[in-house]
Amino acid sequence: MTNHKIALIPGDGIGVDVTDAAMEIATAAARRFGFTLATETFPWSCDHYLATGRMMPEDGIETLRGFDAIYLGAVGWPATVPDSVSLHGLLLPIRKAFAQYANIRPHRLLKGVEGPLKSEGFDILCIRENTEGEYSGAGGRVHQGTPGEVAIQTSVFTRMGVERILRFGFEQARARRGHLTSVTKSNAQQYSMVFWDEVTREVAADYPDVTVEPMHIDAMAARMVMAPESLDVIVASNLFGDILTDLGAAIQGGLGFAASANINPDRSAPSMFEPVHGSAPDIAGKDIANPIAAIWSAAMMLDHLGEAEAAAAILAAIEAATAQGIGTRPGSHSTSAITQTVKAALEA
Amino acid sequence: MTNHKIALIPGDGIGVDVTDAAMEIATAAARRFGFTLATETFPWSCDHYLATGRMMPEDGIETLRGFDAIYLGAVGWPATVPDSVSLHGLLLPIRKAFAQYANIRPHRLLKGVEGPLKSEGFDILCIRENTEGEYSGAGGRVHQGTPGEVAIQTSVFTRMGVERILRFGFEQARARRGHLTSVTKSNAQQYSMVFWDEVTREVAADYPDVTVEPMHIDAMAARMVMAPESLDVIVASNLFGDILTDLGAAIQGGLGFAASANINPDRSAPSMFEPVHGSAPDIAGKDIANPIAAIWSAAMMLDHLGEAEAAAAILAAIEAATAQGIGTRPGSHSTSAITQTVKAALEA
Ligand SMILES: CC(C)[C@H](C(=O)O)[C@@H](O)C(=O)O
Ligand SMILES: CC(C)[C@H](C(=O)O)[C@@H](O)C(=O)O
Repeated sequence: MTNHKIALIPGDGIGVDVTDAAMEIATAAARRFGFTLATETFPWSCDHYLATGRMMPEDGIETLRGFDAIYLGAVGWPATVPDSVSLHGLLLPIRKAFAQYANIRPHRLLKGVEGPLKSEGFDILCIRENTEGEYSGAGGRVHQGTPGEVAIQTSVFTRMGVERILRFGFEQARARRGHLTSVTKSNAQQYSMVFWDEVTREVAADYPDVTVEPMHIDAMAARMVMAPESLDVIVASNLFGDILTDLGAAIQGGLGFAASANINPDRSAPSMFEPVHGSAPDIAGKDIANPIAAIWSAAMMLDHLGEAEAAAAILAAIEAATAQGIGTRPGSHSTSAITQTVKAALEA
Repeated sequence: MTNHKIALIPGDGIGVDVTDAAMEIATAAARRFGFTLATETFPWSCDHYLATGRMMPEDGIETLRGFDAIYLGAVGWPATVPDSVSLHGLLLPIRKAFAQYANIRPHRLLKGVEGPLKSEGFDILCIRENTEGEYSGAGGRVHQGTPGEVAIQTSVFTRMGVERILRFGFEQARARRGHLTSVTKSNAQQYSMVFWDEVTREVAADYPDVTVEPMHIDAMAARMVMAPESLDVIVASNLFGDILTDLGAAIQGGLGFAASANINPDRSAPSMFEPVHGSAPDIAGKDIANPIAAIWSAAMMLDHLGEAEAAAAILAAIEAATAQGIGTRPGSHSTSAITQTVKAALEA
């Protein structure tokens, strides 16, 4: 029987609640489809930071390297640890160290879920560059605390980084409806984004079967709301992808439904799976967080591990629940009620 | 009789169509309210670039300085001049040279206009920093054209720049519903955006009557779609404001309805007024562009020039038209039909 070694990082707040839910479903799927999951849980979180002075131990990355995949709940507890510290101490370094350069986020309405838009027939795959660009972490502050202070934040885009995410995007577009929108802001950012546009044109030459459309981030944000059904695959930089995928979450009914995968396509290191939502301190530990995004993310993990059938069955089970109105509206059902409904559908 | 000297830069594409419309209405308002507009038109545009090698003459900024206000249609014609060239040659340097640091964009549904959201009762004022940040233009490219190429784009935020836009925003919030959302991405951008958050906290101390809420750009984008009625004044950086205001345009029914003002609050140089939309090459010169955003922007200009009554009358005339369904849907009415309906309402 195949065994998959999974590192669990529940993290903070509802990250813990939804990781439990997602693992309960993943384990049920493993049972049904004849494989096993060996999970090991790491308590890395803001509490861990307060206790140890670090979000994860110094050898954290090396520890994770031995796993087949990483599952992460959510990171951040701003009341005690600034977000800039917690995220740069845990989530962001994992994405970078393991070259999880493709952050994949599907946006469509699950059966039974009502979105905020009048438009309902969209099916978007957003592919976000996940290791560089606006998240490079380069910069500094000069004359700090004085009236003359200047803060600089530098986006770094490499040929390697831009080309590989675009190739990945074109491959996905080819496997879907053959349409790719490449999102930049080259009218205002004349170095980084003009470069991205150039690389897009070059890579596009290798994919004559894919129609490619460059679009500015501002127009794109408007389009996701005005005409989401006109979109297929979106490829965007780290920051633009971050923004567009929260917008994607919104049009699909909210962050409770937005799943994500941080993929290392070369499989030279583990990939990481996490819902798009944050730690939501206000509802943590109350059994009211919606676990659907987390469960969907676990399905993406199983798919990545070669368990496509199990992944599809989980997705079908999620939609069996939402089609009945279970978990479709904030507060309508508890975390555990939603999880049990999905589990029952999966085992049926 | 007061005379206002206006520099007109119709620019490219539908910029020309809508500037004509906006000036026809502004002139009618002047007649009715007893003032005059002395306009001078500058042909600065992509055509001008092709003819002269510059988007505007070397002394363009000095020429504009003598006016009471600048009205701009739209800039850009990517088929012949790259956007990065046209915008850095005309629109962006005017905003910076004249310290038009507050870019103000109102988002609400005009009477009779149907938006893409189920939610309709929102009234948002977005205030965008307009002179620095992600639009600083600092950066470069190394190893250009080789596999090792690196492109960098540096955001520069100054104490002066951040503080003045926040103070401006707090003043606006105080004059409205007393609520301000300050948009950053301080969990990922640990220099620029952490700095912005710090300045927000400091300035907020001077406005105890305004409730202030920091929010990340990704969550904010989602919120504009999920709960726009929860927002009052938004203050954001140059790039984040750019994205949020296109999103604001989308929820208010489209770019045909989104007006904007580039304000120099100190009045040390002219302010500039322009619709949010671009030059829309595909529909240019066909008498089908919606002039409402442009006319609304002209109303903002008159308001800034002290003609508050005329501005209010134009806005009322716009809504008299849209309430009858004139100009509310793409293609339903020609540019001139919409303009004449607004004019008739204004003169009634
Ligand atoms: C928590 C934050 C740093 C993170 C990001 O911006 O990448 C999150 O918003 C996401 O989208 O995964
Ligand atoms: C044309 C472009 C450079 C401009 C901007 O990004 O500022 C436009 O999108 C706007 O919002 O005024």
